[in-house]
Amino acid sequence: MNLDMSLLVTGSIAIDTVKTPYGVSENCIGGSAVYFSMAASFFSPIRLVGAVGSDCPFDFAKVFAGRSVDLTGLEVRKNSKTFRWVGTYGENMDSRTTDYIELNVLEEEPPAVPAEFKDSKFVFLANTAPNLQLKLLGQIDNPVFVAADTMDFWIEGQPEDLKRLLKKINCLIINEDEARLLAKEHNLIKAAEKILDIGSRQYCRAVIIKKGGSGSLMCDGNGNQFILPAYPAAEVKDPTGAGDSFAGGFMGYLARNNKTDFASLKKAVAYGTVVAASTIADFSLNGLTSIDKTNIDERFETLRKCTSF
Amino acid sequence: MNLDMSLLVTGSIAIDTVKTPYGVSENCIGGSAVYFSMAASFFSPIRLVGAVGSDCPFDFAKVFAGRSVDLTGLEVRKNSKTFRWVGTYGENMDSRTTDYIELNVLEEEPPAVPAEFKDSKFVFLANTAPNLQLKLLGQIDNPVFVAADTMDFWIEGQPEDLKRLLKKINCLIINEDEARLLAKEHNLIKAAEKILDIGSRQYCRAVIIKKGGSGSLMCDGNGNQFILPAYPAAEVKDPTGAGDSFAGGFMGYLARNNKTDFASLKKAVAYGTVVAASTIADFSLNGLTSIDKTNIDERFETLRKCTSF
Repeated sequence: MNLDMSLLVTGSIAIDTVKTPYGVSENCIGGSAVYFSMAASFFSPIRLVGAVGSDCPFDFAKVFAGRSVDLTGLEVRKNSKTFRWVGTYGENMDSRTTDYIELNVLEEEPPAVPAEFKDSKFVFLANTAPNLQLKLLGQIDNPVFVAADTMDFWIEGQPEDLKRLLKKINCLIINEDEARLLAKEHNLIKAAEKILDIGSRQYCRAVIIKKGGSGSLMCDGNGNQFILPAYPAAEVKDPTGAGDSFAGGFMGYLARNNKTDFASLKKAVAYGTVVAASTIADFSLNGLTSIDKTNIDERFETLRKCTSF
Repeated sequence: MNLDMSLLVTGSIAIDTVKTPYGVSENCIGGSAVYFSMAASFFSPIRLVGAVGSDCPFDFAKVFAGRSVDLTGLEVRKNSKTFRWVGTYGENMDSRTTDYIELNVLEEEPPAVPAEFKDSKFVFLANTAPNLQLKLLGQIDNPVFVAADTMDFWIEGQPEDLKRLLKKINCLIINEDEARLLAKEHNLIKAAEKILDIGSRQYCRAVIIKKGGSGSLMCDGNGNQFILPAYPAAEVKDPTGAGDSFAGGFMGYLARNNKTDFASLKKAVAYGTVVAASTIADFSLNGLTSIDKTNIDERFETLRKCTSF
């Protein structure tokens, strides 16, 4: 089997203003579902589920022109406003402060999964409240591989909902600080093992811990481990969207090949790493719209060459 | 050619007292030349050049029993005292404070390189004042591959001597903070490139930047790059000697195979990584004395499996 499998993402669509030492990008398109879709669409058709308000200035047909992104699940709510985020990155891009945030549509009922998306086999639940992630997942009939993101706010604020979620998904993709918080363990390999235990190992097949400029780490329930450095990108102009682009490359590769064995998960992590590096090389989506699949495959080979011995 | 080549190390021999969350190791054997020799002796015969005082409690013939470590260059100075260091590691082993230090014999004239060591082909100059490293190197007739370590104290205090040293060596092995300080550049790949330029690229063939728990990075003068994560060691009991053990595994492998092409340097970095992980799994030299070459080769294969895709 090598047929593209249906890949659904639920997540935010944002109007971002981002300040980095390289400049300011004002009112540009952002949000987890947008970065994910753009990244995953190099590999597989995407089904996007998300909501914006009537103030949303983006023409999504243009944004995703030439890519197979099905916008049936995109709700434009007339009496709502779009999620807005204003953030500033520090000198070395390793710290970020949120200057301003308006949740807006993200505080309302989550979007419904359209009937024609209910047969989706691969699902990514971008970061939001775990009870909402569970509600969204409950609308999918029979998924094959479900991955989710979360954050410190939910780990501390909704631990029981998060535990219920972990028992329903196959893969958690999480930052190192969040992994330590969730597992109450500093050592990341041990933290991954503890998180696999929370999820009960038969369902949660893998935990991926993202370490920013230090790469990522993946452990599965069978004791397999994979450690990959970050792509040797000399340029980082805007780290926004790196995590969701990573998830997009990862899930896009899996859906494309319809395989979830550990060897495939490893290659998927490498593709996620390459796509994330492309995202952060420029502001907003520019890093992803200025490359094609050939560039990604070349960078995949470069990463392999740089890390093999 | 696959003959063992002569490998010489000059560095410190210490009486260490180390406190970590796992316990206290009092008045144990340490020092850069000791960790290096123990690590490198898995691969190649070693010629050790160093000095201790009459107070030195260690029987080096016993310490290195069963290993090919030539102690002709070990000076025992009757009217001197041995270098002593007392240090404490923080809760997560990522911070270290020096509680007490006595330089003693390290403040005196450096040891002489014995006549029978002057034909050494591979040389490691452990961390000390760069003018002393130059003096020691000047006593070797015609080395093939010279690597050196340095630290913030010399980067800030003797920058001109350090530049002279960089023009005489083939490989600098340095921590990430030191690399940033030396290159005045935060991005580590760019920092490595700048350090290669200081050294003039025809002589300085490679720069290796150690990132602790995040692995290491190597760049050479031809634009080759290698990035390797740390060994997935669940246990870290005492990080002392990790850097010198890394250098020992690295140089030992190169000397063993008498090759310095980039493919060999990559494998040498991987062996250095494996040996360093073995060092930090226990106090003092215990992590190195409790394993054999078979264990190291198995861990080398584990590292390859964990990082390949």
